[in-house]
Amino acid sequence: MSPAPVGGSFTPHPRTPAGHDALALVASVADIVRKEAAEADEAGVFAAAAVERLRGAGVFAVNAPREFGGTGLTSLHDTCLVVRELARINGSIGIGASMHLALTCYFARQLAHPGTADLEHRRGWMRRIGAREMVLASAVAEPGREAWRVAAEARRSGDGWSVTGTKILVSLSPGATHLYTRVRTPGEDGYAMATAMIDVRTAGVTVHDDWSGLGLRCSGSGRVVLDDVRLPAADVRIGGSWGAPDPGDFAGRAAASIPIVAAYAGMAAAAYDVARDRFTTGAADPGSRWSAAAVRTAYAELTVAMAQVNAVLGAAAERVDEAFRSTAPRGAGDGAGRDLLADCLIAALAVERSAGAVVDRAMEICGGASYGAASELGRVYRDVKAAAFMRPYSPPERWADFLADTGAAR
Amino acid sequence: MSPAPVGGSFTPHPRTPAGHDALALVASVADIVRKEAAEADEAGVFAAAAVERLRGAGVFAVNAPREFGGTGLTSLHDTCLVVRELARINGSIGIGASMHLALTCYFARQLAHPGTADLEHRRGWMRRIGAREMVLASAVAEPGREAWRVAAEARRSGDGWSVTGTKILVSLSPGATHLYTRVRTPGEDGYAMATAMIDVRTAGVTVHDDWSGLGLRCSGSGRVVLDDVRLPAADVRIGGSWGAPDPGDFAGRAAASIPIVAAYAGMAAAAYDVARDRFTTGAADPGSRWSAAAVRTAYAELTVAMAQVNAVLGAAAERVDEAFRSTAPRGAGDGAGRDLLADCLIAALAVERSAGAVVDRAMEICGGASYGAASELGRVYRDVKAAAFMRPYSPPERWADFLADTGAAR
Amino acid sequence: MSPAPVGGSFTPHPRTPAGHDALALVASVADIVRKEAAEADEAGVFAAAAVERLRGAGVFAVNAPREFGGTGLTSLHDTCLVVRELARINGSIGIGASMHLALTCYFARQLAHPGTADLEHRRGWMRRIGAREMVLASAVAEPGREAWRVAAEARRSGDGWSVTGTKILVSLSPGATHLYTRVRTPGEDGYAMATAMIDVRTAGVTVHDDWSGLGLRCSGSGRVVLDDVRLPAADVRIGGSWGAPDPGDFAGRAAASIPIVAAYAGMAAAAYDVARDRFTTGAADPGSRWSAAAVRTAYAELTVAMAQVNAVLGAAAERVDEAFRSTAPRGAGDGAGRDLLADCLIAALAVERSAGAVVDRAMEICGGASYGAASELGRVYRDVKAAAFMRPYSPPERWADFLADTGAAR
Amino acid sequence: MSPAPVGGSFTPHPRTPAGHDALALVASVADIVRKEAAEADEAGVFAAAAVERLRGAGVFAVNAPREFGGTGLTSLHDTCLVVRELARINGSIGIGASMHLALTCYFARQLAHPGTADLEHRRGWMRRIGAREMVLASAVAEPGREAWRVAAEARRSGDGWSVTGTKILVSLSPGATHLYTRVRTPGEDGYAMATAMIDVRTAGVTVHDDWSGLGLRCSGSGRVVLDDVRLPAADVRIGGSWGAPDPGDFAGRAAASIPIVAAYAGMAAAAYDVARDRFTTGAADPGSRWSAAAVRTAYAELTVAMAQVNAVLGAAAERVDEAFRSTAPRGAGDGAGRDLLADCLIAALAVERSAGAVVDRAMEICGGASYGAASELGRVYRDVKAAAFMRPYSPPERWADFLADTGAAR
Repeated sequence: MSPAPVGGSFTPHPRTPAGHDALALVASVADIVRKEAAEADEAGVFAAAAVERLRGAGVFAVNAPREFGGTGLTSLHDTCLVVRELARINGSIGIGASMHLALTCYFARQLAHPGTADLEHRRGWMRRIGAREMVLASAVAEPGREAWRVAAEARRSGDGWSVTGTKILVSLSPGATHLYTRVRTPGEDGYAMATAMIDVRTAGVTVHDDWSGLGLRCSGSGRVVLDDVRLPAADVRIGGSWGAPDPGDFAGRAAASIPIVAAYAGMAAAAYDVARDRFTTGAADPGSRWSAAAVRTAYAELTVAMAQVNAVLGAAAERVDEAFRSTAPRGAGDGAGRDLLADCLIAALAVERSAGAVVDRAMEICGGASYGAASELGRVYRDVKAAAFMRPYSPPERWADFLADTGAAR
Repeated sequence: MSPAPVGGSFTPHPRTPAGHDALALVASVADIVRKEAAEADEAGVFAAAAVERLRGAGVFAVNAPREFGGTGLTSLHDTCLVVRELARINGSIGIGASMHLALTCYFARQLAHPGTADLEHRRGWMRRIGAREMVLASAVAEPGREAWRVAAEARRSGDGWSVTGTKILVSLSPGATHLYTRVRTPGEDGYAMATAMIDVRTAGVTVHDDWSGLGLRCSGSGRVVLDDVRLPAADVRIGGSWGAPDPGDFAGRAAASIPIVAAYAGMAAAAYDVARDRFTTGAADPGSRWSAAAVRTAYAELTVAMAQVNAVLGAAAERVDEAFRSTAPRGAGDGAGRDLLADCLIAALAVERSAGAVVDRAMEICGGASYGAASELGRVYRDVKAAAFMRPYSPPERWADFLADTGAAR
Repeated sequence: MSPAPVGGSFTPHPRTPAGHDALALVASVADIVRKEAAEADEAGVFAAAAVERLRGAGVFAVNAPREFGGTGLTSLHDTCLVVRELARINGSIGIGASMHLALTCYFARQLAHPGTADLEHRRGWMRRIGAREMVLASAVAEPGREAWRVAAEARRSGDGWSVTGTKILVSLSPGATHLYTRVRTPGEDGYAMATAMIDVRTAGVTVHDDWSGLGLRCSGSGRVVLDDVRLPAADVRIGGSWGAPDPGDFAGRAAASIPIVAAYAGMAAAAYDVARDRFTTGAADPGSRWSAAAVRTAYAELTVAMAQVNAVLGAAAERVDEAFRSTAPRGAGDGAGRDLLADCLIAALAVERSAGAVVDRAMEICGGASYGAASELGRVYRDVKAAAFMRPYSPPERWADFLADTGAAR
Repeated sequence: MSPAPVGGSFTPHPRTPAGHDALALVASVADIVRKEAAEADEAGVFAAAAVERLRGAGVFAVNAPREFGGTGLTSLHDTCLVVRELARINGSIGIGASMHLALTCYFARQLAHPGTADLEHRRGWMRRIGAREMVLASAVAEPGREAWRVAAEARRSGDGWSVTGTKILVSLSPGATHLYTRVRTPGEDGYAMATAMIDVRTAGVTVHDDWSGLGLRCSGSGRVVLDDVRLPAADVRIGGSWGAPDPGDFAGRAAASIPIVAAYAGMAAAAYDVARDRFTTGAADPGSRWSAAAVRTAYAELTVAMAQVNAVLGAAAERVDEAFRSTAPRGAGDGAGRDLLADCLIAALAVERSAGAVVDRAMEICGGASYGAASELGRVYRDVKAAAFMRPYSPPERWADFLADTGAAR
């Protein structure tokens, strides 16, 4: 029953009983998942065994209602804490699961706000999610394309659709049962955006499992090719504008992004745990490296940096939860949506930097052993850098412009 | 009715109706207090008019029960928000008031936990606080002495006491009606610590009003000399050990310190407000300085730094509130007290640095006008630096050692 | 004969005998100038006595040939070291003198490259500078105007000129004998830039001595009003384009700016000296604050930050010296001029930040005493912040754009 | 004939003709070495081909006199520039070669100061180094032992010695012909330190080639086991004290360390080059990511951070060169040796941090492509982190204590 959901000052705690239950599920398999993921990570292959174990334990089902087999978790705040714990086990696992859990939390919210979607259809998905039959990978990114200008396309084909395109950075794809993907679809006035839910066993789907990154080495964040993939009408849903950022999407993007921020907070917590354990153990040995002024100061700085990660994640998750408690999906006004996304982006930047500081301090505390290829700190050093490329705004290099423009628009 | 309690992402909000009411009191006099304080600050004299106005408006009475004339504020979290707002008006005012409000919040907690103190005596104080008759200055610091090794001394004298000593950094002292002071008192086994409540009109009290600091220029943080000051028995209370840090004091020190952290958060908010207003107004003028990459990026960074201040203050204030909701004053165990003080110290460090970043970014955004002697940003630049010398641990230079030792003791 | 020209690792040393001699002049009056300047600084008035003493000692004459009474200093590198030492004595003095010395070094370079200017006229100035009869203030800035778009104007009047306009931030103006000022002059194709040398005793010149800044309090950086000031033809020199940044000016601007960078390096050295002396003295007392991990680490960090200041200043001063050794004034090509100015701007940013770190560390090391209004560290804390508003590019907020555009142009 | 020895503002230039020639040698094979090293790095194996090519080109011979086949390079400053260039090609190569070149530069210095060593013996080594027959690996580190308390031991055996022990982090060992190793040797009053030069083909030497680090993946920094390795008397040299840091070693340690600092400066230059090239090319495409405020500002910051790396390396290399120009090896007094080592340590810290900033900025500029496993920036991100564990003081975690103690001793 480890690890306990701790990790420094101001660690956020679950706010709902369902959150408590979901974290207990994670804790029940944490040790074995950690081991399985570490092996895959070191080998640089997808963490198939770890993901399968989490699926079997019901971790991918937590957002489903209890009657469907889940824990009935609808709080985005507590969903973030689940992701944080998974990333504390292994960064790749946290990132991979963050996409699935962001989506299933979104579906849970749709179920709670009838009228925002084809309820029966959603309920069908949730039933299968609760039954642990669905593991989702989010297939959005395309090479050289902003999120609002995808080239993958769904065209009418008979009663249904044909989807063709190439997606990259599809985390968890080698272990997913379904791809939740963003495509464009031609209309009279040009393209519209649409989302498609694709069973990976459908003809025309090729999951390449070709991720080769600096870090997140067992996240399976590879390429997926869709070649004339035929889907029934109900599995494609048109919505949103193509070709320019859509303010109506900002709130949804905030909801989709905050679990990713939680994943980076979890990686920081993993580094913090290692350093704290080493320091606590070592400090019993006087005269050792633990008495060096630089090490003692680095430990103090570590606690400050970790507290910043925790406080910002907690505040952001609470902020998003509150925003969505009262509004239906896509129900926020454009201004409110922009403010919410700005808050998530700010949280992402703050966590990215403080998490980087946590890792640097942890390595300073632990010394040269951190630099081994198989060291947990070395792994987190690589993993945590991905935060700079996964900010909650697209294109990511426009983050400062988005925040400045948001300020200018007040 | 300004300023509204805003100031960046993750601004903490009051959690109790009493907190709302207390903030409304502050807002009702904010504009005039800002003006009065700014004049005193520029002249480098104590903000007598501003403090008198706050007293008259009942701001120093907020922690008293409603039936005594207060707003019944017992939440330390919301007391922190009151301090934050005051510091947003003027840093000196926030710091000065933080001492009074920390004490009156402590008295309010004592009233709520009968048995921890001579209730009738405390009720008497609270009645006068509610009646706006008491403004407290905290007189603890002495030149070259740690907080747990004060030289000011109370000796038995007839039925009462005689107190002699010199205190420095007694913020608000030129406007205080009473000094709440820490002294030693000789016993059979050496000295014990004691606290004394001293009416400033008592013979032997000299308030020197001689503060001359880099910043906090209207805070009245000068020297007070006590020369054979006679007090009735009830006004001195023995408690705590002298000569070494007393773990039993850690929780109390946390409670006394977190409003100071709130004051620095408020100063950051003041700088943020100036920069945001300038940026929002200026950005309407294309081609101007507001389109410079450095200014746009600085604005984005400003929002990140301010969010960190807010999130950390909110988390720390909530943490302290929660710790005290369930325990009587001095009721926390030593380990819990150490953890709580460590959390406050961590919050203080985080706020100190992020607040510094906020001020730097704000000056970068606003340009050379910030460097004028009378500029608000210039004032905050000087004020906010005091945080480095007011950390919630004594002696302050041992902050890293305290955090490292706390880690080692886990 | 103090202070010795030391101050941390990688302190640059003079490269010419004339530089050695000039530094010795500064050292000969350092103690008394320090005292006089400190008094003026605390009072917030111009350091008239200190400036007069430096003039009398020949410090303002160092760039004049030996036969004219100077030390024959033509190296811009060593001129920077003179400014650094003056700023180590007092930041205001360093800034004030930097303008004069930048100009006299420029004149010295003109004398060394016959043909670039009316040699006889320059020689006349140099003779008076060597005779200690001229102290120059640089009057360029105007409210709300970029350096290349000044509104002060010189119009033909009889055989000479009439100059009218308002200049701000004219450091040293209350002690200057002459103003070296930038004006526009109307021509057939619009305005051209011009420079005018104005004796402050000329009718129409009003030096307001009204500087009131956050810092540099005794620098006399006030306003100067020129109202129909009549000048002989030879004292106005037309050159350069008005209305847009002139790449032909970049090299000259680099030469004019690098002494200012040296001034900020000198302020950092002053803070370093204070902290090192306190630490060295204090460390002899075991168990004291000097054994705290945070203080020991801060001292180590102080040495790193100071070394960065020194190394960057040294490299930049050498770079500029080398660039000018081989070329006449305004002789560098536009691309070379841009590169040189970019290097100075980069050095300014690096020094600005490292100097800020030095001051912060020094205050951390020395503790609360640093926060006194009359503390040297408190003074430097205020002074050093001006670096953010005196960067070697106009308008200063475009610094990142200038560096990015320079990179893009390679 | 690339890469040219450029890389940002204040790039240090060779100060001797021999340095020029040595850099030309490096440039002549840079392209092919870069390619060969990159392949080895990606595969995580020792860069055998690249090292062999450098040996063949004479790069390992540069410190030998010209008559022996070298370029006669005796300047430590210029030796550092050779290391910097090699690290700019590949970090592992730079680190590996830094040990060899530090040693051969030391031998060159010994040759130049007759009397400090058995000259004939040194001349023999230099002859073979010049003939490209010797590639040295420095075998000092042992698991859990400070540099001044090694456990590897040389015992008298017949006319010669027998050496036994285990060394780790022996960079370049799979490609070395000789190991230059530090051992202890028993004497009447306990152990003394000694150095042994060991041909890797000697019986009892096992080079494990088992390096598996977070970075420096092709540096061959593995374990070497010495088991009763027999050496002639002349190949072991007794000197220095065992068991405690020996101030007499400080100057030597400075000389041995500064090329390592140069290697990290070279890695920063590699990252800078990539980002500058991408930015320069990209900026020609308006409206692209290169116009984002965050990217433009990051580019400006990149130039500042790179300039700091260059200025500090240049100043430190010049400082060391100057110190050694006038003194024989081990000829500096203890105080001077301590100061020199402190300067190197300060330079190492400054370069470590600025280099980290360069890499972070470069990745920010280049975006997600930097995160690929085979990306050059990703490689440098991993390599450059090793600086934190290779500081010029042993034990490395005592760096702040060493600098504080040095300050206290002034």
